[in-house]
Amino acid sequence: MSVQIANQDFAARLVAVAEATESTLDALLQPHRLKGERTRPERLLEAMRYGALGGGKRLRPFLLVETAGLFGAQGDGVLRAACALEMVHCYSLIHDDLPAMDDDDLRRGRPTVHKAFDEATAILAGDGLLTFAFDVIADAPTHPDAGVRADLTLMLARAAGLGGMVGGQALDLEAEASKAPHTREFVALMQSMKTGALLLFAVEAGARIGGADAKQTAALSRYGSALGAAFQVADDVLDAEGDEQALGKRAGKDADRNKATLVAALGLEEARRRRDALAEEAIQALADGGFGASAAILAEAARFTVARKS
Amino acid sequence: MSVQIANQDFAARLVAVAEATESTLDALLQPHRLKGERTRPERLLEAMRYGALGGGKRLRPFLLVETAGLFGAQGDGVLRAACALEMVHCYSLIHDDLPAMDDDDLRRGRPTVHKAFDEATAILAGDGLLTFAFDVIADAPTHPDAGVRADLTLMLARAAGLGGMVGGQALDLEAEASKAPHTREFVALMQSMKTGALLLFAVEAGARIGGADAKQTAALSRYGSALGAAFQVADDVLDAEGDEQALGKRAGKDADRNKATLVAALGLEEARRRRDALAEEAIQALADGGFGASAAILAEAARFTVARKS
Repeated sequence: MSVQIANQDFAARLVAVAEATESTLDALLQPHRLKGERTRPERLLEAMRYGALGGGKRLRPFLLVETAGLFGAQGDGVLRAACALEMVHCYSLIHDDLPAMDDDDLRRGRPTVHKAFDEATAILAGDGLLTFAFDVIADAPTHPDAGVRADLTLMLARAAGLGGMVGGQALDLEAEASKAPHTREFVALMQSMKTGALLLFAVEAGARIGGADAKQTAALSRYGSALGAAFQVADDVLDAEGDEQALGKRAGKDADRNKATLVAALGLEEARRRRDALAEEAIQALADGGFGASAAILAEAARFTVARKS
Repeated sequence: MSVQIANQDFAARLVAVAEATESTLDALLQPHRLKGERTRPERLLEAMRYGALGGGKRLRPFLLVETAGLFGAQGDGVLRAACALEMVHCYSLIHDDLPAMDDDDLRRGRPTVHKAFDEATAILAGDGLLTFAFDVIADAPTHPDAGVRADLTLMLARAAGLGGMVGGQALDLEAEASKAPHTREFVALMQSMKTGALLLFAVEAGARIGGADAKQTAALSRYGSALGAAFQVADDVLDAEGDEQALGKRAGKDADRNKATLVAALGLEEARRRRDALAEEAIQALADGGFGASAAILAEAARFTVARKS
């Protein structure tokens, strides 16, 4: 498994990292057994591959790879860490799509895992990807220093767990079930957990792998927090704009379901301003960290995050 | 968090380790945030506590604690590793009980997590416990040596993942759905994954924490494998005996559901012989490892595993 990523401009690099992530995930999710494994059941492995391969912009792996690259760190170990992160993201999508959760039949135009297979297999495929993420990140080929691997494991568990992504999903489901309007503070907290924590992990893991010093780490954490928040506000704005276009009314399906969004809490105009201010804050954090021109790609990622149309 | 376990005979030690496990789990699953956590949502935490506390003999923590104790390793770090293991066991029970899986309403006489809360919360509580297990095992208080923590993380992920417990559950569900009889080899493979892998991890993790040498590790792995297999055959035999008593017929509910059991594959008499032979093999492995009288408690655990009535 050795995947080269050429140095190019933002759009080309986004594609290149996505391709490198895809081929590394493909190599990890093969029928061969690792030491300590008895066998990899065919149908379960197939469902895990279905849920993990062929999807998305791979923004999280991109942020991890580019942040590590600021410090000259690159190669298969960095890609393995990026794939562990992406497996956690993919597992969360599989479980979020389940009938008991968001009950979605389609994701990116394809049947969701529980539709393409069955519900039990989807639950197990999610469990399997989450567990395999910790296998990949803790194993020696990811980094020669066991201390770094233990740190990355802990950071990933905390970003994904009850005080991070899983907790954010729990808050989101509770919010949707309630009738009361949601405060801006609640929405910001929920979003910082549900989507922000993994995006922040991407940047912080890259910094840890790259060996960032304390000042650089603080600046990159500020960048990752702002970018994560901008990403979710941009999503809320896109949903609301899509609803406006499609339905010709301001209140879209998010509003109908009393979904906790920043558009609902702030209004569309103010949400757009907040989104753009967060992207600026992310870019400013890079400047304050003293990264100069080497961080141009990460600055571009912040602009891309708020300008994207899907 | 500091829990003392006095040196006593087997039954008393089993209770003492269960109590220490319970109080350590209780201390870990509190509302306070750890570094990197935003907040611990109340209802999710409650469901995780419901699924993890107040249950069972805690056989897996017992095996880990007693194996580490062979080498003089004890204290809060060992208990944290034992709790990480128990969290993985408890998450698997929560997900296995879901309507899409075994669809059980009761566990140990109490409503299952999805009955006491709701299905979405049960899925997230399982996800949260699995993720938190890796947080606990990778964090510094578990062991001063990051290399040991990275090893334990990897071993736990592999025992729990698609080539271990999750894969075993997938094979078990597939087997139940099929009409064909199951070979003894298939049942042994499935059981070595579904229940054997975590029991083996308990022993191997204790050996790693204790700093066992290669010969000792090999002997303890043999012990753990045999014990894990004996445990599952004993379960199959208990189910069949219970069915015989309750229904006055040989073919019990396991047989009705075409469940992959060793009683179905071997018959009850041969399964009993196999169970006892496996317990003897476990005890012999301890003798071959040269542990002498210090392993009396582990030998007792093998006898207990096959003699228990529940």
